[in-house]
Amino acid sequence: MEKNLKVIEGGITAPQGFEAAGVEAGVKYKNRKDMALVYSTAPCQVAGTFTSNVVKAAPVLWDKKLVETAPFVQAVVVNSGIANACTGKQGMDACEAEAKCAGKLLGIPETAVLIGSTGVIGMQMPVDRLEAGIEKLVAAKAGTLEAGLEAAKAIMTTDTVHKQIAVEFRVGGKKAVMGAMCKGSGMIHPNMCTMLGYVSTDVKISKELLQKAVSAAVVDSFNMISVDGDTSTNDTLLVLANGLADNAEIQADGADYEEFCEALNYVTKFLARKMAGDGEGATCLFETKVVNADTKQNARILAKSVICSSLSKAAIFGHDCNFGRFLCALGYSGVQFDPDKVDLFFEGNGKRIQVFGDGAPLGYSEEEATELLSAPEVTVYVDMHAGDQEATAWGCDLSYDYVKINADYRS
Amino acid sequence: MEKNLKVIEGGITAPQGFEAAGVEAGVKYKNRKDMALVYSTAPCQVAGTFTSNVVKAAPVLWDKKLVETAPFVQAVVVNSGIANACTGKQGMDACEAEAKCAGKLLGIPETAVLIGSTGVIGMQMPVDRLEAGIEKLVAAKAGTLEAGLEAAKAIMTTDTVHKQIAVEFRVGGKKAVMGAMCKGSGMIHPNMCTMLGYVSTDVKISKELLQKAVSAAVVDSFNMISVDGDTSTNDTLLVLANGLADNAEIQADGADYEEFCEALNYVTKFLARKMAGDGEGATCLFETKVVNADTKQNARILAKSVICSSLSKAAIFGHDCNFGRFLCALGYSGVQFDPDKVDLFFEGNGKRIQVFGDGAPLGYSEEEATELLSAPEVTVYVDMHAGDQEATAWGCDLSYDYVKINADYRS
Repeated sequence: MEKNLKVIEGGITAPQGFEAAGVEAGVKYKNRKDMALVYSTAPCQVAGTFTSNVVKAAPVLWDKKLVETAPFVQAVVVNSGIANACTGKQGMDACEAEAKCAGKLLGIPETAVLIGSTGVIGMQMPVDRLEAGIEKLVAAKAGTLEAGLEAAKAIMTTDTVHKQIAVEFRVGGKKAVMGAMCKGSGMIHPNMCTMLGYVSTDVKISKELLQKAVSAAVVDSFNMISVDGDTSTNDTLLVLANGLADNAEIQADGADYEEFCEALNYVTKFLARKMAGDGEGATCLFETKVVNADTKQNARILAKSVICSSLSKAAIFGHDCNFGRFLCALGYSGVQFDPDKVDLFFEGNGKRIQVFGDGAPLGYSEEEATELLSAPEVTVYVDMHAGDQEATAWGCDLSYDYVKINADYRS
Repeated sequence: MEKNLKVIEGGITAPQGFEAAGVEAGVKYKNRKDMALVYSTAPCQVAGTFTSNVVKAAPVLWDKKLVETAPFVQAVVVNSGIANACTGKQGMDACEAEAKCAGKLLGIPETAVLIGSTGVIGMQMPVDRLEAGIEKLVAAKAGTLEAGLEAAKAIMTTDTVHKQIAVEFRVGGKKAVMGAMCKGSGMIHPNMCTMLGYVSTDVKISKELLQKAVSAAVVDSFNMISVDGDTSTNDTLLVLANGLADNAEIQADGADYEEFCEALNYVTKFLARKMAGDGEGATCLFETKVVNADTKQNARILAKSVICSSLSKAAIFGHDCNFGRFLCALGYSGVQFDPDKVDLFFEGNGKRIQVFGDGAPLGYSEEEATELLSAPEVTVYVDMHAGDQEATAWGCDLSYDYVKINADYRS
């Protein structure tokens, strides 16, 4: 924990001026909340990162345009169940209808309404049910922590837990708050972006600096996780800043910007880790830390290659100290290195053992290795002995339930 | 089937002068054959491709050196159970001991003996058992089809079926034969190479042209398959040509070279497809054919991205027409294209339906789609409408058994 930061209760509604709601709209799921609203009483600067997938969902196209061109934004409407991806013009029309409906009811321009969708790809949206859902959302919105929690629950798909966080920090001498929520469990392999993630803050910051901070924050957070190697069509991270903290607007690099980035990095890493640990079918969080690599980028590539490997993930599920699979994954990552220099360790339950060094397997207790690999958070720790750069990536194990969930996800 | 080619019975021993054997050596497995020998009565030209993994198994390093420097080769000794990877100097010493032992017993130089290993990574080799196995192999070797079959069975690990083929063809007016065997089921994502694959032929061909033909053949065969995205430390394809067909030596491009390549391409594609269909835990062969792409390389990348996607593979296992996942995988492949131009079809059991076109889902019968996706060989057919290049990639579905096999592979 950075010393300027304090984790506080709540999520997206924690900062001043942010309200939220989660309601049952019956978009596709039955008997659960499936639509969420985030609303700021004051106009917000917005920044975002989006999927690098060539096939972009309609709400991604909608939000990208607003982030680039809208003078301000004030609301986000999100649904789960249907992703509104591969839906052509009809999909874009659905976004516009949602934004018009929410804008009218909230008394703000339709260009101030961001849209998010997650769920099945290739299915058209039921616009009438979305509009009815928006009416309910606007009626229910509140600035309470409970309202934020309902929103965080409504955006879940195969997630088993909701994911939110709020932190308090000081910026330019003023108390500021940042809240966030996200969802993500399958089709998780973000690339310059994440699954659906929403961050609210009352910090006053220019659009340019906000985008700079967001683009930097995703590199070592959401871009360092993977559940299944599939980069979604809908990945979206949006950060809304309404300025109500009344700090002197952050317009350039410096101490204030650093304070803001520290909070944003903390929040995005927290959520990314949480998303990886709740990967579809996961029984544990599978972390890989690469230290003493020659370059930062190579450290990232090596760490990510290990947590992406199906065989490594299956070994973690089986609590099997089959360490050759981790070396194999380092080896095909694309990074050049000398295998004879690599030290490989396992960490779990606060213990640590070395299993490989000097180019050959080391003597270690299989029993101890199995115990350690049965921890709820398992780390493969790799010392490259090639420099001083490090990176950490997060994934999860590959279980029967991953297959089960994805063999009949639509039904 | 190309008209110059006829598939005949047998495998690696089908061409003149090739002998083989498979024996129980107890390297790691119990009560099954786990060592194989391929031997040519005449010296052979050899060409090969090997894993691009930075972490290369000892036998890969051994074979690479021989392929580059040995004046001729005459034998291959292969074991299953232990991969002899991540084993340092001790691993290289084991290769040398095997080659010395086989060379002495066969009356050929140790530099004429290639080595192959497949199985668990990070475990040292029991050299005494390997040497005892080699004695048995040399005693048992024969030129019969049965002996070839025993060799093909002995190199299996998690494979459920042995994989071999033989073809007869004419080259330079002479009758020639090509035989082959391979193994591979998990850790399959070859890159400039394959899992263990051995091809024998009695064609007379220069070393240079042989290597050229092999390097070209892998591009659209073994490099177009994937079971789990993991590129092994041991991938090896070797082609041995002993010249006994008595054709005029192939020393340059031309009709003779084309005839040879036609046979080699047929054999390597056959084995690659067979390997994909026997992927760990697979219930079906999952083929993706991309047509009318702008470039050949883009067609390959697109096709491979689909068969590598965990979510696409799980949908195939569930017989679920969740076509958005295939579009998603095309979208994150790295190739730029216009999604609105893509037509997507499913093929199975000799039937075909279109599910996506003009940027939106099409009306189709779910029942018909499910039936078609329940076939033992399922094809996703993608028309990019962007050019005239095509490529095909082969994989398999992702099943509970994949996880089961790999959560406790070592035990």
